[in-house]
Amino acid sequence: MLMRTSLYWGLILLLAPGTAKAQPMLGFTDQGAAAQRALEQQFDALLSTDNLRTWMRQMTTKPQHVGSPHAKANAEFMVSLFTAWGYKAELAEYHVLLPTPLERHVEMLEPEPFVAKLIEPDLEEDATSAIREDRLPPYNAYAADGDVTAPLVYVNQGLPRDYEVLRQHGIDVVGKIVIARYGGSWRGLKPKLAAARGAVGCILYSDPRDDGYFQGDVYPKGPYRMGYGTQRGSVLDMPQFPGDPLTPGYGATPDAERLPLEEAQGLMPIPVLPIGYADAEPLLRALEGPVAPAAWRGALPLTYHIGPGPARVHLKLRFSWDIVPAYNVIAVMEGSTYPDEWVIRGNHRDGWVFGAADPISGMVAVMEEARAVGVLAQEGQRPKRTIVYAGWDAEEPGLLGSTEWAEHNASTLREKAVIYINSDGNGRGFLSAGGSHTLERLVNEVASTVTDPQTGVMVKDRLRARRRVAGDAEVGAQGDLRIAPLGSGSDYSPFLQHLAIASLNIGFGGENGGGSYHSAYDSYDHYTRFQDPGFAYGRALAQVAGRLTLRMANAEILPLRMDNWVFQVQKYVTELSELITTMREETQRHNSLLDAGAFTLASDPRKSFVAPLAKDPVPHLNLAPLHNSLAAVTESAQAFDAAMETYGNRLSQERKQALNGLLMQLERAMSRDEGLPGRPWYRHHIYAPGLLTGYGVKTLPGVREAIESRDWVEAEQQAVIAAGVLDRVSDLLTRARAILEGA
Amino acid sequence: MLMRTSLYWGLILLLAPGTAKAQPMLGFTDQGAAAQRALEQQFDALLSTDNLRTWMRQMTTKPQHVGSPHAKANAEFMVSLFTAWGYKAELAEYHVLLPTPLERHVEMLEPEPFVAKLIEPDLEEDATSAIREDRLPPYNAYAADGDVTAPLVYVNQGLPRDYEVLRQHGIDVVGKIVIARYGGSWRGLKPKLAAARGAVGCILYSDPRDDGYFQGDVYPKGPYRMGYGTQRGSVLDMPQFPGDPLTPGYGATPDAERLPLEEAQGLMPIPVLPIGYADAEPLLRALEGPVAPAAWRGALPLTYHIGPGPARVHLKLRFSWDIVPAYNVIAVMEGSTYPDEWVIRGNHRDGWVFGAADPISGMVAVMEEARAVGVLAQEGQRPKRTIVYAGWDAEEPGLLGSTEWAEHNASTLREKAVIYINSDGNGRGFLSAGGSHTLERLVNEVASTVTDPQTGVMVKDRLRARRRVAGDAEVGAQGDLRIAPLGSGSDYSPFLQHLAIASLNIGFGGENGGGSYHSAYDSYDHYTRFQDPGFAYGRALAQVAGRLTLRMANAEILPLRMDNWVFQVQKYVTELSELITTMREETQRHNSLLDAGAFTLASDPRKSFVAPLAKDPVPHLNLAPLHNSLAAVTESAQAFDAAMETYGNRLSQERKQALNGLLMQLERAMSRDEGLPGRPWYRHHIYAPGLLTGYGVKTLPGVREAIESRDWVEAEQQAVIAAGVLDRVSDLLTRARAILEGA
Repeated sequence: MLMRTSLYWGLILLLAPGTAKAQPMLGFTDQGAAAQRALEQQFDALLSTDNLRTWMRQMTTKPQHVGSPHAKANAEFMVSLFTAWGYKAELAEYHVLLPTPLERHVEMLEPEPFVAKLIEPDLEEDATSAIREDRLPPYNAYAADGDVTAPLVYVNQGLPRDYEVLRQHGIDVVGKIVIARYGGSWRGLKPKLAAARGAVGCILYSDPRDDGYFQGDVYPKGPYRMGYGTQRGSVLDMPQFPGDPLTPGYGATPDAERLPLEEAQGLMPIPVLPIGYADAEPLLRALEGPVAPAAWRGALPLTYHIGPGPARVHLKLRFSWDIVPAYNVIAVMEGSTYPDEWVIRGNHRDGWVFGAADPISGMVAVMEEARAVGVLAQEGQRPKRTIVYAGWDAEEPGLLGSTEWAEHNASTLREKAVIYINSDGNGRGFLSAGGSHTLERLVNEVASTVTDPQTGVMVKDRLRARRRVAGDAEVGAQGDLRIAPLGSGSDYSPFLQHLAIASLNIGFGGENGGGSYHSAYDSYDHYTRFQDPGFAYGRALAQVAGRLTLRMANAEILPLRMDNWVFQVQKYVTELSELITTMREETQRHNSLLDAGAFTLASDPRKSFVAPLAKDPVPHLNLAPLHNSLAAVTESAQAFDAAMETYGNRLSQERKQALNGLLMQLERAMSRDEGLPGRPWYRHHIYAPGLLTGYGVKTLPGVREAIESRDWVEAEQQAVIAAGVLDRVSDLLTRARAILEGA
Repeated sequence: MLMRTSLYWGLILLLAPGTAKAQPMLGFTDQGAAAQRALEQQFDALLSTDNLRTWMRQMTTKPQHVGSPHAKANAEFMVSLFTAWGYKAELAEYHVLLPTPLERHVEMLEPEPFVAKLIEPDLEEDATSAIREDRLPPYNAYAADGDVTAPLVYVNQGLPRDYEVLRQHGIDVVGKIVIARYGGSWRGLKPKLAAARGAVGCILYSDPRDDGYFQGDVYPKGPYRMGYGTQRGSVLDMPQFPGDPLTPGYGATPDAERLPLEEAQGLMPIPVLPIGYADAEPLLRALEGPVAPAAWRGALPLTYHIGPGPARVHLKLRFSWDIVPAYNVIAVMEGSTYPDEWVIRGNHRDGWVFGAADPISGMVAVMEEARAVGVLAQEGQRPKRTIVYAGWDAEEPGLLGSTEWAEHNASTLREKAVIYINSDGNGRGFLSAGGSHTLERLVNEVASTVTDPQTGVMVKDRLRARRRVAGDAEVGAQGDLRIAPLGSGSDYSPFLQHLAIASLNIGFGGENGGGSYHSAYDSYDHYTRFQDPGFAYGRALAQVAGRLTLRMANAEILPLRMDNWVFQVQKYVTELSELITTMREETQRHNSLLDAGAFTLASDPRKSFVAPLAKDPVPHLNLAPLHNSLAAVTESAQAFDAAMETYGNRLSQERKQALNGLLMQLERAMSRDEGLPGRPWYRHHIYAPGLLTGYGVKTLPGVREAIESRDWVEAEQQAVIAAGVLDRVSDLLTRARAILEGA
């Protein structure tokens, strides 16, 4: 099936209004909704895929990581565009620590010599692949300098469960260099866990099973990773300390006070280097010891052994520990009515190399959206609230640009921000949305009004079809589609988790598979062949994000719906109870098998086997405070939604403003200034990245992570704290309802 | 952990009786049980691992497929041994159709030339690998002669579900050559399904994911399949017509009337050839078209595409369609008391090449068992019932030796056989047992008295530990372990499914992984390095099978326990109801997704996609007759077991004989002379190999396969027929109980 042509687009646009009119619009009166719909039609008509293509081509001609000349040129280019479109645009400059490689060396000394190439070769089919000037070679930012020689151990993905398996084989990593394949968790966790267990070095590699030839044809024939395509990436300890390591918790302004390098927060204590599978294959082939479990085996044509050795590897890394300027592009369109209520919409603009998919495909959609909003404003349809468009720098090394800006402007943002809407690149296929569940209904409303460019149905309907076909039991023929809770991994993190600003993260994907991620082959050529060739989904992203931005900017009452939020929180609380029960049953089963000697009897006496340890029994925990507060907040939420339905349409302007003032603080009520246990930067108590998952979310993280780490005392304490957070939400909703009912 | 020494064995034997005495022994009075236990101790003491090693070495020095000189020499060697041990031993000769290759040619013509080597190279580390005389090259027996040139299509395992996937991609196999990987079902099903869909040829290959380097180090470094190691095997249509294709249903005696070759039953209509993955790799690499789904991808270092083409393949096969003599070794020890009640114990003795693991490792255990029984008989402890030891020829091409013997002696066997106990090779690790569930308790009793050679616990305890660790919810700390129902794939099939003689199939395994199956590397060297190096499990097999044989031979009342059988049949009936419900729900879901266009919306418009067809709704079926008969047989079975418990110990000799006469016919009551729908040879109505699984069992096959094929009318008819079978079992049990209660 071919892509729809622009002629077809015209047809859709002509047909759309008739069907869309019947839909409700949260936060708007009927009249307001009609005006907003008309505005969205005009907005759609302004969006051009040609701009996306032109800007991407220009912004990806040279390497554009933070600190590079082209990154600065791009920033200035964007400022000039935003200015031309009527924004007050400027560069917000922060100075951040950015180590770059001076020396990278991986060599196998035994059982046979091999020196890893560590290069990404030029490809005729990829115009920018031969550019070497200003280009960062494959490396992991914030890995330690080091010069180590040690036996190699294959640790699969290097996760806690992998170390359980190693233990069963009687293998440790003390004094070893580990080799871990990418995948299964955030990359920074792999060397962190290895270092904590005594490893002296870490090699990360991309197994062809995960994004290479096992998945599809490799570049340049197809989009997947070729043997030397290498995933760069940060190994900063982000679940603990995101942002610039020298200015923890405050803005890294040029004149800020900085920690000395030796006190920097979150640096990796051991050397770490990423390699491609062409370089990894000889190393893995040279391992002996137990055959790796089936789930550990990749797609290289060899038997995966764990080691340790006989492969003995020399890993030498040296970095320049420079402080470089990061330039966030900040473009402000002041609101006509509520200038002190800010809708923030951003995407990062720095890439590890050329960064076509990550991040430029998302950045250019933001720009086109902003251009259209600018045109509308110039035509007299200025947004009621202030819109701030942001192009973040230095996202790749550790969300530095957004984090420093958020930290620097924390008090203003906590007072004024109503939402942060993020994207981080874009692909082809299905809408993907995550974020605060107070916004879930809004996302559903918007997704019901944007047409999928390939099939002509609404993007919500296509997503519903996908989830139903996949067997998602929560998805029926009707009703809201759920959005995912957010962990970390992109620029929403400082807004959502640190400042507790309601946030969304959106993009399209699912049909643009490939293995260019964080390699030099994430290029214009790759993107326009394999990702979103006609930029139709770039336009769709601008439509979805533009509607979200404009509805948030123009809504009479902030379009929050508590019912969706309560549904999720109930689920999370239920999950906690189930988790405890499951852990208890599993512990009983485990210990009873251990008592019966079953693990040993079931194991092959000719293979190494160390029986697992007994687990401490799981007591019954008092989660009653959490359940009681959940009951209360459920009631407050239902009453609030009902009051909104009854009184929302006839509220005085004064009360609307008072109500909005409260609703802006709703997400803040879900956070605590003390932050989460052991990581005060993370203040949100409903969503956080997992300490042991990195990017992956943990909901009700204080309680959940205490249970998972079998700290029963802390679990009960955290249940009380989480209950307190729910109580604050209840209070706020009760006050909000009073404003409504006083109408 | 090292293997136990023979000194340790002595210790176990000294300790064993004290603990074993408390156990019950089904079919024996207390006094009889004590004598039997003493006999088993003497039996154990006679077993020597040295004999196993010596005989295996001798029997695997040369290729020994049916019709080969060494096969005949082995048969004569066995007759001489059995005769020396006091048996009346002879060769039972049948003449069977055995095609062997005259010409094998696989060549790729496009997109680039490649000629498959089709050889298994000599290995220094494997003494017999260089022997070429009398050796059959890799081929699939009963594949058609043919000379075809066609585009290639990769069909994964070539199962019905794989053709569903092909259909979704809009790909058919009409006029194509298919390449299918081994695994997932019996090999013969793959070309059968391909031919039925219009394919003109079939290549089978061993993907390294399944038994090659993905699983472990390849031969000779490790036990797994190397690139040219090739799995031979039959593609006779066994689920329909096992045995000699020219003498369907009757013995292929030298002077039997034979069908002309063109009327032979069960021959494959298209040419089929197995190849190793070294030969398969260039073919698969040359395919384009859609990328194969993840579950289809193997471990070759390439992107698996489906095709068809551009690979264009020339497959040419020519066979000599000879009739060759098959020599079953039949050795009879006439029973002292009940000479007309036969306990039959067999293993096949033909291998595809040297056949060390398959079948000689099992055959030599049978021989050592028989030798010990012979010694005991000579010492005055002749078994009460007649024991028939069998070494079957021509199992590999299609269970020919056993089937022809069973067909030839059908009426005698149906009258006299009380049990058939099969093995088919042996490995290291855990007891594996399948068969008639009337014998499940007996198997449990025996498994509680044989020591696992590696751990020193009883083999039942080790198996229990394994199942518990694997999370088998049916297995607790106490109680009988379940034995598996039997499909096909070895010589029990004619006894169990055609003659309805209670049967067992036993062996050890689970720790002897490898990829020598049906290749020239299934050798003495391979076996003694990787399978059961010290033959300790060969001895354990002789202990288990010897106990089963001797208990069946000496039992005062045949040791059947109905409780275990009823438990299983109840489960099967429940499964049928659940199957219907699941199919109904799945059909409703499928059709509702289809109506909503969800499959098409969820698919990538840039890829080929054909929406599935609507499914006919699943009605509510009348299984009431089956449930009623199940209730009745449950009651009869419980009453029978209770009567056995109460009266079994004090039964007169006359009544015992009458009771045994009835119990011998119990399994026969589970069969019908008309056989299963469309395949009259298969008479058992509780167990059969699946028509679409080949080896895999279908329980209550008449009903189950009708439901699975959505033939609702036949499903209800078969439910009535299955109910009738259960009624006959009820009647027999009622009569048996009358004999007991009349005591």
